[in-house]
Amino acid sequence: MNTLSAIKAKYSELADQQLDLDLTRGQPSNEQFDLSNGLLECLDKNDYRDATGLDCRNYPGPIDGLVEARELFAPVLDVRPELMIVANTSSLDLMSRVLNLFCLIGTADRTRAWFEDRPIKFIACCPGYDRHFSLCESLGIEIVPVPFPRDGEAMSEIEKTVKGDRSIKGMWIVPKYSNPGGETLTAEVVEALATMESAAKDFRIFADNAYAVHDLYEQQETLAPMMEIFERHGSEDRLIMFGSTAKITFSAGGLSFMAASERNKKFLLSLFSKQTISWNKLEQLRHVRFLQGYPGGINGLMQQHAKLLRPKFQAVESILSSQLDDSVASWSRPLGGYFISVNTRPGLAKSVVALASNIGVKLTPAGATYPKGRDPDDCNIRLAPTRPALRDVEIATEVLAVCIRLASLNASS
Amino acid sequence: MNTLSAIKAKYSELADQQLDLDLTRGQPSNEQFDLSNGLLECLDKNDYRDATGLDCRNYPGPIDGLVEARELFAPVLDVRPELMIVANTSSLDLMSRVLNLFCLIGTADRTRAWFEDRPIKFIACCPGYDRHFSLCESLGIEIVPVPFPRDGEAMSEIEKTVKGDRSIKGMWIVPKYSNPGGETLTAEVVEALATMESAAKDFRIFADNAYAVHDLYEQQETLAPMMEIFERHGSEDRLIMFGSTAKITFSAGGLSFMAASERNKKFLLSLFSKQTISWNKLEQLRHVRFLQGYPGGINGLMQQHAKLLRPKFQAVESILSSQLDDSVASWSRPLGGYFISVNTRPGLAKSVVALASNIGVKLTPAGATYPKGRDPDDCNIRLAPTRPALRDVEIATEVLAVCIRLASLNASS
Repeated sequence: MNTLSAIKAKYSELADQQLDLDLTRGQPSNEQFDLSNGLLECLDKNDYRDATGLDCRNYPGPIDGLVEARELFAPVLDVRPELMIVANTSSLDLMSRVLNLFCLIGTADRTRAWFEDRPIKFIACCPGYDRHFSLCESLGIEIVPVPFPRDGEAMSEIEKTVKGDRSIKGMWIVPKYSNPGGETLTAEVVEALATMESAAKDFRIFADNAYAVHDLYEQQETLAPMMEIFERHGSEDRLIMFGSTAKITFSAGGLSFMAASERNKKFLLSLFSKQTISWNKLEQLRHVRFLQGYPGGINGLMQQHAKLLRPKFQAVESILSSQLDDSVASWSRPLGGYFISVNTRPGLAKSVVALASNIGVKLTPAGATYPKGRDPDDCNIRLAPTRPALRDVEIATEVLAVCIRLASLNASS
Repeated sequence: MNTLSAIKAKYSELADQQLDLDLTRGQPSNEQFDLSNGLLECLDKNDYRDATGLDCRNYPGPIDGLVEARELFAPVLDVRPELMIVANTSSLDLMSRVLNLFCLIGTADRTRAWFEDRPIKFIACCPGYDRHFSLCESLGIEIVPVPFPRDGEAMSEIEKTVKGDRSIKGMWIVPKYSNPGGETLTAEVVEALATMESAAKDFRIFADNAYAVHDLYEQQETLAPMMEIFERHGSEDRLIMFGSTAKITFSAGGLSFMAASERNKKFLLSLFSKQTISWNKLEQLRHVRFLQGYPGGINGLMQQHAKLLRPKFQAVESILSSQLDDSVASWSRPLGGYFISVNTRPGLAKSVVALASNIGVKLTPAGATYPKGRDPDDCNIRLAPTRPALRDVEIATEVLAVCIRLASLNASS
């Protein structure tokens, strides 16, 4: 029996198991959510005031969020609490809010509304986060893909693009444990982002620090203090950082937050205060109570998350490395975040995903990590091993490995 | 002693009391918030799923809100649950979201972005809600004041304006217990709004039904079923309704919701789903649990609010009618809502507010109920008697009456 027949036999065997597994989205597991169930019970009918005595049930209060909430989340973005804004659920929503205002009104530079300069573009690291792309695309903003700037070479492409095209108004970046590559910006690259020349004078970097405290191991990657570095170079107005508790507490009952330079924050608050009288301050107070009270605080909670997630990431690594060699695939070995990024040989990702789907294993659609869902090399597959049970992650990864081998053999035969 | 001396003596006497009272903003009192303190305790660590079994902690779920939440709030806006969207805290924020999208992308007609047609305008009933004005003004949208359409005559001015000016893209209206006049649209006026000709084909009415269930007495005003009437005339795409629990449960920990035609809703959801993955579904579930469990539901709760509010509104009415006659002031006698609208003789509102402020009673700045804070007749003063204690409302109203008499006498002397 040749290799192809053996793999085909293995594939049929897996098909016979009538699997129904889903590795598509980066969602926490129920066990992870259970860690924060105390959040549902940590206020009571006598507890609705923050440390300053503010009644969180009523409208008045700081439009940049409760003081305690800003202090709590400032270390997550590694900034001074004075630069923080804590808002409602969904950091994507907060990014959308800022983007819309820039399009409608312009930045703190008050030059002109971005939409006056249409067509406009954003650069984004690809493979990247599909929701960054679709948010821009819904507004008619073109995404220009660039590689994740892991070194000077990748930065030179970004520098050339940003310097050479005035229509490039912004950049998406997931600076730590990037989606899906799991990479973290080095201090040198942060310096380069802070100092590079931009043709658009109102160029802005949207740093979606979604995995800021989402380490899997004791050995962590450390993101350089981005805001501090930008401040040192006087380019702090270029950087806006975002984060959320969507993967700390609850995905659909958490908080979003952001950090901006004093000037950007003042400008944005002047507009936010036209849009809303108050965020959900009780949800902010709830998070303050729960996270301050958790043993070890946010870091203590994230260590519990890591305990649940580590075996799943290790299982994927172990299965892929035992079954695939360099000639058919490469993949990331992230120290944190929510994804493993797999690259097949060029032109095979779609067929691998289809092969897996045919036998009951849903993977993120090939191409999803690229603008408009088109991976020019058709090679990237994003694995999201966080939500399924460990055993299901193992089976799904077995299936993936078999499908990659099968597609590779099919292609060579 | 002549009348002027007597009033001056009374004013000095009040001044001697060193008052510090605030009737400026339409906020519930602490006793009203206390009615909903159960909301802080109504979920627990085993209760995070809705009636369909959906885990409200995780991302997935309907982007128009929990089914139960849509069913709960549909009667508030008097529409079918299928037309509802339930979102996060702050209906102003939801209005801003829709307005921004219309400006950036256009309406469901998909003709073109409103900003392509700049300069654009909204009509708004004046006196009206300052935050409607400032939201528009922050986007460079001019507010064209019109009278509240209490009858055919007022409608004819609106009809002429909307028909005659293509730059008028929208209209603000508080259809029930309007802010500040306390007026409610009649069925005939709703018909006229549904059938009037608009020069802008993508004209939209933003109906901010903030006081939909905020009756003060058994005897209520009934708003005609707006969406049904618009549907009957095939103009349902013209109407978007908004509401919130800001003055039902908590002002800074409630929910916002809206109702839109099937076509508008589909269009808006396609864009909302680019902005956020999920609203705060746990806050929605919390409200479902609390309001479904409240004796008599939302209406039962609103009757408890009315019990607390009624004496305050009655005190204002009683003091004003005993101390002021038609020659110096007129005022509204609302059956619901949060405000009493007082009109002085033309040109006196600012001095009345200043006189009151000088002796420690803060009133909403004269002019605040008009775009850019400029009341052309300088006669309207908005009273917000809901938050202060009854005794303080009484004293503040005494002060107001004395200040109106003093300003009127000063003006005639």
